[in-house]
Amino acid sequence: MTNDLADAQQAHLSRLEQAYAALLAEHGYDGVLLYSGRAHRHFADDQHASFAAYGHFLHWVPLAGLEHSWLLIRPGQRPRLYFHAPRDFWHLSPRLPEEAWVEAFEVVCQEEGEAPRLPAGRFAVLGEVSAAQAERLGAEANPEALTRALDEARVRKSDYEVACLREANRRALAGHAAARDAFLAGGAELDCQLAYLQAARIRESELPYQSIVGIDAHGGVLHYQHYDLEAPARAHSLLVDGGHRFRGYCADITRSWAGPAASDDYRALLAGMDRLQRQLVEGLAPGVSYVTMQERMHQGLADLLVEHGLVKASAEAALERGITRAFCPHGLGHLLGLQVHDVGGRQDKQGHPLPPPPTHPALRLTRELEAGMAITVEPGLYVIPMLLEPLRQGATAGMLDWGRVEALGEHGGIRIEDNVVITAAGRDNLTRDLDLTQEMS
Amino acid sequence: MTNDLADAQQAHLSRLEQAYAALLAEHGYDGVLLYSGRAHRHFADDQHASFAAYGHFLHWVPLAGLEHSWLLIRPGQRPRLYFHAPRDFWHLSPRLPEEAWVEAFEVVCQEEGEAPRLPAGRFAVLGEVSAAQAERLGAEANPEALTRALDEARVRKSDYEVACLREANRRALAGHAAARDAFLAGGAELDCQLAYLQAARIRESELPYQSIVGIDAHGGVLHYQHYDLEAPARAHSLLVDGGHRFRGYCADITRSWAGPAASDDYRALLAGMDRLQRQLVEGLAPGVSYVTMQERMHQGLADLLVEHGLVKASAEAALERGITRAFCPHGLGHLLGLQVHDVGGRQDKQGHPLPPPPTHPALRLTRELEAGMAITVEPGLYVIPMLLEPLRQGATAGMLDWGRVEALGEHGGIRIEDNVVITAAGRDNLTRDLDLTQEMS
Repeated sequence: MTNDLADAQQAHLSRLEQAYAALLAEHGYDGVLLYSGRAHRHFADDQHASFAAYGHFLHWVPLAGLEHSWLLIRPGQRPRLYFHAPRDFWHLSPRLPEEAWVEAFEVVCQEEGEAPRLPAGRFAVLGEVSAAQAERLGAEANPEALTRALDEARVRKSDYEVACLREANRRALAGHAAARDAFLAGGAELDCQLAYLQAARIRESELPYQSIVGIDAHGGVLHYQHYDLEAPARAHSLLVDGGHRFRGYCADITRSWAGPAASDDYRALLAGMDRLQRQLVEGLAPGVSYVTMQERMHQGLADLLVEHGLVKASAEAALERGITRAFCPHGLGHLLGLQVHDVGGRQDKQGHPLPPPPTHPALRLTRELEAGMAITVEPGLYVIPMLLEPLRQGATAGMLDWGRVEALGEHGGIRIEDNVVITAAGRDNLTRDLDLTQEMS
Repeated sequence: MTNDLADAQQAHLSRLEQAYAALLAEHGYDGVLLYSGRAHRHFADDQHASFAAYGHFLHWVPLAGLEHSWLLIRPGQRPRLYFHAPRDFWHLSPRLPEEAWVEAFEVVCQEEGEAPRLPAGRFAVLGEVSAAQAERLGAEANPEALTRALDEARVRKSDYEVACLREANRRALAGHAAARDAFLAGGAELDCQLAYLQAARIRESELPYQSIVGIDAHGGVLHYQHYDLEAPARAHSLLVDGGHRFRGYCADITRSWAGPAASDDYRALLAGMDRLQRQLVEGLAPGVSYVTMQERMHQGLADLLVEHGLVKASAEAALERGITRAFCPHGLGHLLGLQVHDVGGRQDKQGHPLPPPPTHPALRLTRELEAGMAITVEPGLYVIPMLLEPLRQGATAGMLDWGRVEALGEHGGIRIEDNVVITAAGRDNLTRDLDLTQEMS
């Protein structure tokens, strides 16, 4: 397995060298310098905020926490990694792992994290550099066209990248099972979050995004950002949107769980959303437009709301009046990779913008699916008072069973999210194949 | 207790109003606008780094996570809080707590987090604002003299602030006891850290600083920044430097624990360091120079090293040759408050710099102690190869028992740190009075 991964990584790096060589030639550069970045200090303080290295740097170098390091790519030459290894007794200095990929690089260890001098020629520098730094380097900082082209080169994942995404999924799922158990044992949101971290073997600041752990109505706050310290006496529901990171590659998984106080409506909708999510995944294949998938999700939501009596009109009317969009204002999913919302989701192959349709402004993936794309599929159904209140007015007022909507509101919402790779034959669900937590009722 | 705290806070705010009025008059300003700040996004990503609000904003408003909010202080007028409360279904909008202090403010809720317009007059704006923002405001951004003066106004804590520091200590100590228990049960560094968070009821990103959790040699890396996922088969030692935050006020406590594989030398030194730390705390009183305290720590370390046979020369020689500084390169402590390394530690009452002595460059507190100062007292003793190696050369080579030094190196180091408030009568140890974890051997 480790040897397989090393071989796959070797192929990944070779593919990257070819892709960069072609793009640099096309855009007229002699090379590009990628900066990993650095943590920022809190204002007027000596403590630092959390850090994540720049995606294009991570595409080559699988060290998500590496600061102050630089990678020089020149076609036909071995990539040169300026690796920051300070002589510092205050911190544990970063060390290069004893892994095969290191051999692909010419490594220069640097005590200081300064940008290296560049050879003569036309260079771009990508990453969080200041205008002054770029000028000292004599390089163009973050040129738009090259950046878009390199973003595009991240859209279709190599076998190595898929293996990393799968491993991140495996680790995240251990966390999800533990969070569910903590919830069913009466834990508060903080307890669920810590149980997740304990089982997934990761600290909060290394997660690809802040886990969402919402009990009851908090599950309806899409990016709920707190962890309550106290659990309700009898909980209705838990929603956990939690990931992991393996060699920089992100998992992004959501599971929803019925609590002891869950209503029959909630349990039935949970089962219905699980079916809908599986159906949507089964519809994924190269050539399918993700905007169409988004519309299919809304069709499915409309059917579900009518079937369970929350909507007392036809599914067509629920769609037409925007009722499903009030129950699910977010997109069906997004690209996934070195960033949880990976680059390139809203552009075409030439890097031109593909904005979302006006009816689905939050959709982060507006492309046609292609083999190698890694995506999330995450239909949701929530009681969000701010969005439902306007429906109480006018023609829609009588189209909803408000009593049942309000009762469902105590459960917040439901989201079920898997990570899926599009293949030539269809799709590979990285989450369900491993999932020990599938029974959600 | 809650009423007591509310009363103390009222007095704290009144004192602040007076202090600001005097300082603004002295520096020729009609008022000052304080900005809480905002979280930064990772470069080219939509995920945010962790955040902590600006200290001078927190001096008034006890909400350490509040972003995009502004506080306008004008002498003789009620402070006006522009409280950021977006209409946002993605996140849980911040809400003002139902606490008495809110009444002291004129609250303006803002959906946007833009800076408010300022009245006519000369204003300063403090916080992380851009030059463009300051120009739009027509205010001076972060003027040095006023900032130093407001820093100085944070050095002597009010009764309210001391109560908050005490509560932060109480919560942190629950974490320390749990981390020790996890360690003795065979846990890895990550398990100790998560046990700490579980018992202290806090998430990692809300801690005032990243906890240091070092097993064995990692305890000798002063700002060790990782949490290993695996525990050694038989552990020698654990060092935990962990804090908490209550209404913005920070605890910063270190405890060192002997593991099942601890040597007799380590256990004896641990007891000796505990005695030394208590003696140092007993020497604290108004009028005592903290640079003198730093020297006393080194005297105590020299005595201890000689007593336990690690140094085979006299204590005087150990001091003179810098041997104690190789075993403890950090300062004895620092000011503590709204930042873990609080402002004002290296200036005099007029705000002029008081740099550390050349022999103790890392000392963060160079002042004479005064009643109301909150400080840490944290003597340490570590085996740091980078610092000890030079002592193997020349005259010092024969002054150390290198075999015992190396054996101690498997234990990393020892640090014992309490939080102490200087009082008119002497001192008040916020940590030991509450400490359930005092037995360290």
